[in-house]
Amino acid sequence: MSSMIILTEAELRRMVVLDPDAVACVEQAFAALATKAVAMPPILRLDIPEYRGEVDVKTAYVPGIEGFAIKISPGFFDNPKIGLPSTNGMMVLLSSRTGLVQALLLDNGYLTDVRTAAAGAVAAKYLSRENSGVAAIFGAGMQARLQLEALTLVRPISEARIWARDAAKARKAAAELSGKLGFPVIAMSAPREAMSGSDIVVTTTPAETPILEAGWLEPGQHLTAMGSDAEHKNEIDPAAIAHASLYVADSLKQTRRLGELHHAIDAGLVSADADFAELGRIVARQIPGRTSNDQITIADLTGTGIQDTAIATLAFARAGAADAGTPFDS
Amino acid sequence: MSSMIILTEAELRRMVVLDPDAVACVEQAFAALATKAVAMPPILRLDIPEYRGEVDVKTAYVPGIEGFAIKISPGFFDNPKIGLPSTNGMMVLLSSRTGLVQALLLDNGYLTDVRTAAAGAVAAKYLSRENSGVAAIFGAGMQARLQLEALTLVRPISEARIWARDAAKARKAAAELSGKLGFPVIAMSAPREAMSGSDIVVTTTPAETPILEAGWLEPGQHLTAMGSDAEHKNEIDPAAIAHASLYVADSLKQTRRLGELHHAIDAGLVSADADFAELGRIVARQIPGRTSNDQITIADLTGTGIQDTAIATLAFARAGAADAGTPFDS
Repeated sequence: MSSMIILTEAELRRMVVLDPDAVACVEQAFAALATKAVAMPPILRLDIPEYRGEVDVKTAYVPGIEGFAIKISPGFFDNPKIGLPSTNGMMVLLSSRTGLVQALLLDNGYLTDVRTAAAGAVAAKYLSRENSGVAAIFGAGMQARLQLEALTLVRPISEARIWARDAAKARKAAAELSGKLGFPVIAMSAPREAMSGSDIVVTTTPAETPILEAGWLEPGQHLTAMGSDAEHKNEIDPAAIAHASLYVADSLKQTRRLGELHHAIDAGLVSADADFAELGRIVARQIPGRTSNDQITIADLTGTGIQDTAIATLAFARAGAADAGTPFDS
Repeated sequence: MSSMIILTEAELRRMVVLDPDAVACVEQAFAALATKAVAMPPILRLDIPEYRGEVDVKTAYVPGIEGFAIKISPGFFDNPKIGLPSTNGMMVLLSSRTGLVQALLLDNGYLTDVRTAAAGAVAAKYLSRENSGVAAIFGAGMQARLQLEALTLVRPISEARIWARDAAKARKAAAELSGKLGFPVIAMSAPREAMSGSDIVVTTTPAETPILEAGWLEPGQHLTAMGSDAEHKNEIDPAAIAHASLYVADSLKQTRRLGELHHAIDAGLVSADADFAELGRIVARQIPGRTSNDQITIADLTGTGIQDTAIATLAFARAGAADAGTPFDS
């Protein structure tokens, strides 16, 4: 017989929001990657091409943390045609000591949205110029919105631009974000125009061919690419990786296979075993992040299991403190 | 908002038992592996050595089946010291069309027990002599018991022997199985003695060094090794693989890495890319199984995601028909 807590999306939305605590939680997770004997196996990935579906399963164990999450992330890209969201999923939190299921987090992907945006904040905190005030966001979906919100938690953002293939969506997102964040957010008709003069650029699209050219990057800019989490995705001109002053991976093992780096390797611009910085080592102060105001920095975020374990642990602790959720025995 | 059914272990035990239907369900799954464009990614494995823990995550998608299972199987081998079972876990059944969670099967490993035993029955059905009457089982745990029961569903077993490192456990299992199955089940003090004169031998132990020597195999015997599901496990003398008339893998990709075959490759007895039969191809009649009464046959079973998808689909269909389970929205 095992006893677990079931938490619904509504409960999880009350427990965990994109705030400085969520950013700190993901920041500590990155530091742990660099400083602890974290076990983070390769992502399990299942493709169902008949329905334009894909499922990723991620996990990570951090010594000293009581539980570890196994996250199931489906993305089914024909779902919107039948009125369903493309992405959903859930997390299972297991005890690190016994393997027993502690909690089922039926978040429909919400916690992934939060931890992904929080990683964007961590990248900006260590890699962008401290006085970054102008942000450009590529994409107009949920993650585009959250990435901009996340930037405001770590940098004095006072102006933002949004570019998306679908201009109407970009305008809608810009209007909503402007109202919510209290500063001008402008939809741009050309990606280069959105980038020009921005301090921080975040790409959040499912692009399979680059939407951003290497030559557009300006001295002092920081770029976070967080859309590529699979071999076929590619947001950034591969030449940008070689062109940047500092390229930083969330997990080099993953970005060599799934991230923007993978395309730079395939294009022969970077060798397959070239060593690059990982964000965790910068957070843990083992290596420097940005060291001057004119560097061009790139963060290549593919999403890591340790972020899931971190946010699930936060959600579970808060649910326990609030006595939230439905106990269930089996 | 997603709507799912939660099924408890008690409900699942009522829905699915080790019977000819369960064997047929797993048999069809093996056939599908050979005949359909099944997607079955490599197993995700996480190790937590601090607590002698390991977690496997398996999945498989079969075209034409409405759902696919993602199974989380933890094994924490210090659990018995605190009164908990070593293995537990659950399955999540997702829609193949939308990726939405259809059901949470909180089986604590029960469905894995059933599908693993059913695979043993399928192996015996295609590889052992039809008149096999004497079975030898190595190990005295839950799977040892179920494998013997499974054999009785496909062969006229009228006598069985059990050997286990812990002789008291072997005696206890023998007495219980004898009462349940209605034929003599005898605990043996030496593994060779248990094997001698047996028609079918099944090894179900977590051994890390071989418990069975190649020279003990007798003409006409069938051996199923189902204990090795990880690199460090090894029940069978690697020479047995080369010595057998017919070696059959559940998944050659898996047995080359995790199964008994892996140790034969490591020992240099078999080349790493040597081609061998897979059980699914035999079930699908693409290649022959046993062709004579004096062949020595070996089935190397590591456990496949398609077995999980098959048994979860059976359980979900039966739960639907019986209106069982707890609906849950999130």
